[in-house]
Amino acid sequence: MSAIAELKPPDLEPRFARLRAQVDRALDRLLPPAGERPARLHQAMRYSVFNGGKRLRPILTMMACEAVGGTAAAAMPAACAIELIHTYSLIHDDLPSMDNDDYRRGKPSCHRRFDEATAILAGDALQAAAFGVLAEEVSDADRSAALGRELGSAAGSRGMVGGQALDLGATSKSNSSELERIHLMKTAAMFRAAARMGAVCAGAPPPSVQRLGRYGQSLGLAFQIVDDILDVCGTARDLGKTPGKDSAQDKATYPARFGLEKSRRRAELLIRQVVKEAMSLGARGKPLSDLAEFIIRRTR
Amino acid sequence: MSAIAELKPPDLEPRFARLRAQVDRALDRLLPPAGERPARLHQAMRYSVFNGGKRLRPILTMMACEAVGGTAAAAMPAACAIELIHTYSLIHDDLPSMDNDDYRRGKPSCHRRFDEATAILAGDALQAAAFGVLAEEVSDADRSAALGRELGSAAGSRGMVGGQALDLGATSKSNSSELERIHLMKTAAMFRAAARMGAVCAGAPPPSVQRLGRYGQSLGLAFQIVDDILDVCGTARDLGKTPGKDSAQDKATYPARFGLEKSRRRAELLIRQVVKEAMSLGARGKPLSDLAEFIIRRTR
Repeated sequence: MSAIAELKPPDLEPRFARLRAQVDRALDRLLPPAGERPARLHQAMRYSVFNGGKRLRPILTMMACEAVGGTAAAAMPAACAIELIHTYSLIHDDLPSMDNDDYRRGKPSCHRRFDEATAILAGDALQAAAFGVLAEEVSDADRSAALGRELGSAAGSRGMVGGQALDLGATSKSNSSELERIHLMKTAAMFRAAARMGAVCAGAPPPSVQRLGRYGQSLGLAFQIVDDILDVCGTARDLGKTPGKDSAQDKATYPARFGLEKSRRRAELLIRQVVKEAMSLGARGKPLSDLAEFIIRRTR
Repeated sequence: MSAIAELKPPDLEPRFARLRAQVDRALDRLLPPAGERPARLHQAMRYSVFNGGKRLRPILTMMACEAVGGTAAAAMPAACAIELIHTYSLIHDDLPSMDNDDYRRGKPSCHRRFDEATAILAGDALQAAAFGVLAEEVSDADRSAALGRELGSAAGSRGMVGGQALDLGATSKSNSSELERIHLMKTAAMFRAAARMGAVCAGAPPPSVQRLGRYGQSLGLAFQIVDDILDVCGTARDLGKTPGKDSAQDKATYPARFGLEKSRRRAELLIRQVVKEAMSLGARGKPLSDLAEFIIRRTR
C-alpha cells in the first residue's frame, strides 16, 4: 500500500491481541461444541467464526464501552453479537449466487469447505445466535432490549442486508451518492451499531451514544474505502483472498469510481473527522483515535 | 385425505380468519414498504410474507396468550416474530442447494420469482426483522428479553436450523428416533416457542409457560406428520406445491418410514395428548383444543 502503511504504530497490536483473545474465548464458550449434533453445521459455524478474523468490530464495541466509562467485560455479549452477525454476512456474501468467493482469509470459504446448504444454514444459525446472546447474556433487561433494537436495525434490510442488496445491483458506473449509500448501509451501519452498542453497555446517556454512533459510522466508511483500496493494491497473501476481484466483477468501489489517489484522500479525510470525534471524549477517547489510525494503516 | 378430513368443524375458520387478518395488518405495518430502496429486496420480503400463508404459528401464539389470561393484541409482536422466522425458513429451504422447490403455496418460490441472491438476502433480512420486532415493539423490557431468549434458542442450531441440517443428511431409511429428533428440532421447536411466547406475553407464571410449551411441542410434531401425510396424499391444487416430492427425494418422513396408516395413528395419538393438555387449562383451553383438531383435519 502507500507509505503510511509503513508507519504502523508499534504499541496497538498487543492491546488488540489481548481484546481479540478475550472475544475468541467468549465466542468459543457461547457456540455449541463442534462435536454436538448436527456436527457438520456446528463445525461450519466454528470454521467460519474462528477463521483468523481481525475482530475489529467487537474490539470497537469494547473500546467504545471503555471510552464512556464501562468495561470491556460489560460489552462482551454485544461484541460477540456484532462479530457473529459479521461472520454470517461473510458466509452468505461468499455464496456462488452472491459474490462467488472460493477463499476467505486464505482458506476455502464456508460453502467450499462444507457445501452450499450447510453454509446457508451456518449463516442463519449464527444470526440467531447473535440475537440470542443479547437476550441470554445481558442481565439488565432494558439494556438487552436496547441492544436488540440497535442490532435489528443495523443488520436488517435498512442496514447491512439492504446495503448488500444495493451492492448486487451496482457497478463501477454508479454515482458517488449511490456509492456512499451502499457503503453506509453495507459497512458503516454495523460499525455504527458496534460503537453505539458499546456505549449502551456502559449505560452512557443518549448524547454519548449518538457521538459514538457518528464516530463508528465515519470509521466504517473509511474502513470500506481502505478495504476497496487494498483489493486493488494488496497481495493475495496479505488479503487471504483474490485481489483485483472487485474490479474484475465491475463492483461499485471508491477506487473504481474515483481512482486510488482520490480514494486515499477521502479515507484520510474521514479518519481525521473520526479522530476528532474520538478526541472530543478526552483522554479516554485516545484508544478510539488509535483504532482509527490502525484502520487507515492496515494492510489486510 | 382420510374420512376425518370431511368432519372439519364449521366454527373455527371465522375465528382463525379474524386472527389471520390481524396478523397480516401487523406484518404489513412493520415491514418496509415495497417501494422503499432496496425495492427488489423489500418486494421479495413482502412477496414471501404475503403469499397466502395459513398463519398457524402466530395464531397459536395469540391463542396461547389468551388461554392464560392475556390478549391477542399483547401477543402480536411475538406472533409477528414467529411468522417472520417461519417465512425466512421457507425461503431458504426452497433454495436450489436446499430442497430446490420451484413452487410455494401455488406461486413461484422466492428465488424463482426474484433471484437466488435476493432470496437469500430477503430471508436474512426477515430474520433480523423478527428479532427486531421483539426489541422494538414489546414495551416491557423483561418480557422482550425473555421472548428473545425463546426465539433465539428455537430458531438456531439447536432448534429449527439444526433440524433442517439433520434433515439434509437423513433419508427414508433413518431410524424412528432420528426421525423424531428431526421433527422435534425442525418443526416442533418453533411451535413450542410460539406457544411459550404467547404465555410470556400474558405474563404467565413458569408452570403455565411450560405447560403451553408441552402443548406446542406435541402440536408441532403432529403438524409435521400430517404435513408429510399430505405430501403423499394431497393434490397439487390443495398443497400449492408438488405432491410426492418428499418420497421422490427420499426424505425422512413418517409415511416413508412407517406407512400411511401407522403415521395417521401416530398423529391422532399426539393430537389426543395435545387436546388433553389444552383441556387441563379449563374453559380457556378450548380454542387451543380446537386448533389441534383443525391441524389434524387440515387438507393443505
